Amino acid sequence: MAEAHIGLIGLGTMGSALALNIAEKGFPIAVWNRTTEVTHRFRAEADELADRILPCDTLAALVAAIAPPRAIILMVPAGQAVDDQIAALAPFLGPDDLVIDAGNANFHDTNRRDAAGLPFRFLGMGVSGGEEGARHGPAIMGGGARADWDRVAPVLTAIAAKAEDGTPCADWMGEAGAGHFVKAVHNGIEYADMQMIAEVYGILRDGLGMPAEDIAGVFRGWNEGVLKSYLIEISGEVAAAVDPVSGGPMLDVILDSAGQKGTGRWTAVEAQHLGTPIPVIEAAVMARNASARRAERAAGEARFGPGPRRVEGMTTETLEQALIAGKILCYAQGFGMIAAASTAFGWSLDMAAIARVWRAGCIIRSAMLNDMAAALAEDPARNLILAPGFAAMLEETVPALRQVVAAGALNGLALPALSAGLAWFDTMRTARGTANMIQAQRDFFGAHGFQRVDGLDRPHGPWGKA
Amino acid sequence: MAEAHIGLIGLGTMGSALALNIAEKGFPIAVWNRTTEVTHRFRAEADELADRILPCDTLAALVAAIAPPRAIILMVPAGQAVDDQIAALAPFLGPDDLVIDAGNANFHDTNRRDAAGLPFRFLGMGVSGGEEGARHGPAIMGGGARADWDRVAPVLTAIAAKAEDGTPCADWMGEAGAGHFVKAVHNGIEYADMQMIAEVYGILRDGLGMPAEDIAGVFRGWNEGVLKSYLIEISGEVAAAVDPVSGGPMLDVILDSAGQKGTGRWTAVEAQHLGTPIPVIEAAVMARNASARRAERAAGEARFGPGPRRVEGMTTETLEQALIAGKILCYAQGFGMIAAASTAFGWSLDMAAIARVWRAGCIIRSAMLNDMAAALAEDPARNLILAPGFAAMLEETVPALRQVVAAGALNGLALPALSAGLAWFDTMRTARGTANMIQAQRDFFGAHGFQRVDGLDRPHGPWGKA
Repeated sequence: MAEAHIGLIGLGTMGSALALNIAEKGFPIAVWNRTTEVTHRFRAEADELADRILPCDTLAALVAAIAPPRAIILMVPAGQAVDDQIAALAPFLGPDDLVIDAGNANFHDTNRRDAAGLPFRFLGMGVSGGEEGARHGPAIMGGGARADWDRVAPVLTAIAAKAEDGTPCADWMGEAGAGHFVKAVHNGIEYADMQMIAEVYGILRDGLGMPAEDIAGVFRGWNEGVLKSYLIEISGEVAAAVDPVSGGPMLDVILDSAGQKGTGRWTAVEAQHLGTPIPVIEAAVMARNASARRAERAAGEARFGPGPRRVEGMTTETLEQALIAGKILCYAQGFGMIAAASTAFGWSLDMAAIARVWRAGCIIRSAMLNDMAAALAEDPARNLILAPGFAAMLEETVPALRQVVAAGALNGLALPALSAGLAWFDTMRTARGTANMIQAQRDFFGAHGFQRVDGLDRPHGPWGKA
Repeated sequence: MAEAHIGLIGLGTMGSALALNIAEKGFPIAVWNRTTEVTHRFRAEADELADRILPCDTLAALVAAIAPPRAIILMVPAGQAVDDQIAALAPFLGPDDLVIDAGNANFHDTNRRDAAGLPFRFLGMGVSGGEEGARHGPAIMGGGARADWDRVAPVLTAIAAKAEDGTPCADWMGEAGAGHFVKAVHNGIEYADMQMIAEVYGILRDGLGMPAEDIAGVFRGWNEGVLKSYLIEISGEVAAAVDPVSGGPMLDVILDSAGQKGTGRWTAVEAQHLGTPIPVIEAAVMARNASARRAERAAGEARFGPGPRRVEGMTTETLEQALIAGKILCYAQGFGMIAAASTAFGWSLDMAAIARVWRAGCIIRSAMLNDMAAALAEDPARNLILAPGFAAMLEETVPALRQVVAAGALNGLALPALSAGLAWFDTMRTARGTANMIQAQRDFFGAHGFQRVDGLDRPHGPWGKA
């Protein structure tokens, strides 16, 4: 008894993978699942790792099997199931025991649980990388009390993915729901990265008329350069794949209707509440919603025609540059959102640490995150587009983004995310914007008042309303 | 006693204006304010309308002064104040009495109150048009039980604005919070209309180098054509106005930092929950947020330079056409959101009635809403861009929108709303989109599965994950 280093509840896909990963790294682990049969089958199928897995039939047995002060990972569906599990565990745990919610909780729920005065310690932890990541090295974003994180950090850094420099991609992000929050923004950025790739894919396919195998070559080439990343890599893979049924390109037989689990939407909602603009992510969510409306889109094409679509004089190098620019702009928005949340929620998020955690194990892992981590370490409060290295890259690549967005606009190729990125960039590099017109209108119809450029306190116009 | 036709609680700016409007239309009205002095001063200053105003010092007196079954309008700040007022009134009212919340309630609150089993009848009512509208003719959007609306419709249609054909702009929108919901979408569209005007203003000012007085002439010209609307009209007014301090154009001394009361944001949040794309409104909210970040924008311009900005070969006619296209696209999104809410909340919103109510009294009133009402009456479920008349207008004007968006992209003029509108249009007229790439990626990294264009049930690619 009491020989397990840690416990885990919930042996679904993610929980099982995480438990095997922990056992593989040398930590004896006690496991429990609502269905006892699942628990025993899990151990039976664990092969050479079975020795380090202690299957438990009851919560009491699970708790008893773990060396105190205990740490127990919950990997159950987000929402009510977590609250239920917490309530069920409470009678068995002491004040020094620690429960870690590793599911996809909404960070507001994690904040609530953190503040609820539970009779044990509590961490909320975002785990990214899917089943593969959980099994062989996820990115782990922890939230709660720093001291609680430190206690379990040896296990979590052992199982986490490692960046190229060997740093584990597991870190404490901040207080309360900070870990789950950072994970959500990660997912929003993932939506945006994927959408921008899809838009460029559209130009290659419809604008340049390239077959899928050539498109694969383009992505593979880009994966050797600045864009090197997991998503660009797998874009090359899927573009190269052959459909076993038709013998043609796999991509060409996949329906253009994308699902979502709602995490991109949730990020967009949260950004609205924070008043922090993430238009590239919003555009990506819009595009997923629109992708589901196939009949409506077909009716649109029937009415307005497909053309022209074809783009003249566009090189793949221009597209690469445009995608680099779009990516920097998108990440600048995402990190801006994180900074806004840090202030709004009284967290002290370490922007550079977040970029570092994303370098491996998660879907958005990329070479560029190394440089972002360095830029954010230099000045975490600065808009990433103003960090010298990224500003220089934007100076070099934005002209290509301008060309691509203009070509899309003129030729009817839909580029919601790339054009949203550019419009935001131009907004943020315009010292004298056009909101003076909006303020004038608001004062005209509602006497809302305005400030003057000369600082005089005369907040109303001569339109005789106020 | 009991001689008032209706009662009103809350004599702030909006409440006072509404009470005077009601009295003016011949209805004796009992009024009560938390501060008794305000109540009496209100009557004293009502001049020739004072005879029809019954100032009441207590809620009991107010209720006693109204002929049963009573109708009482609440015009108090949205939120807790409404709940407090409802609780305070409850002891005095019978089951046939009717309370009408005419404030800016979040429609979720109105839904909640509607479902709460109050001991009296309840309506939630959106009132648009500001103080001027409330005093001389607002647009009124009612929500609740149809029979309750019908009871007070004679007063509400009497005080409402009248469309050019004489129809009162007051109507029952639907059940529960439907009135407040429609008002919120109105405000979101208002944000978008204003932002698109501001973007075109920016091209005139920075792209064509026009002085404000010339810009005034352009807007005044447009107000004679398809764009004829209150917002275009006042854009001409404010552009023509002279600053009494400097003697120069008023517009040029107003700070480019726009405020918001959060209703645009709220519409964007609700659209996310409904999964209905309103990218033009989202872009408008983004632009307002960005406008407040003046120091950051100045730093952006210092780093990236202001240029080129100047646009060659752009006519004001092209800009007019682009704005027409943008407006149609924005309204199509707004009506799409209303249709989605009608389904999601089990309302039976009359799309044409909504367009009709917006024709006068409110900020977004315009000539085009007449045609929108007609198109929505024909087929309320159809995307407005596919209605024959609007499809034809888009066919004519979208080429100009393409030119304008491309010019903005190439020359660094920020056009977030116009470009979001165009990207959405191109998304919705593309039968074969690019979400197949996204589905392939999702299946590759998460075994999420996809559908095939040939309908075969083989939901995974040959990348060996599933």
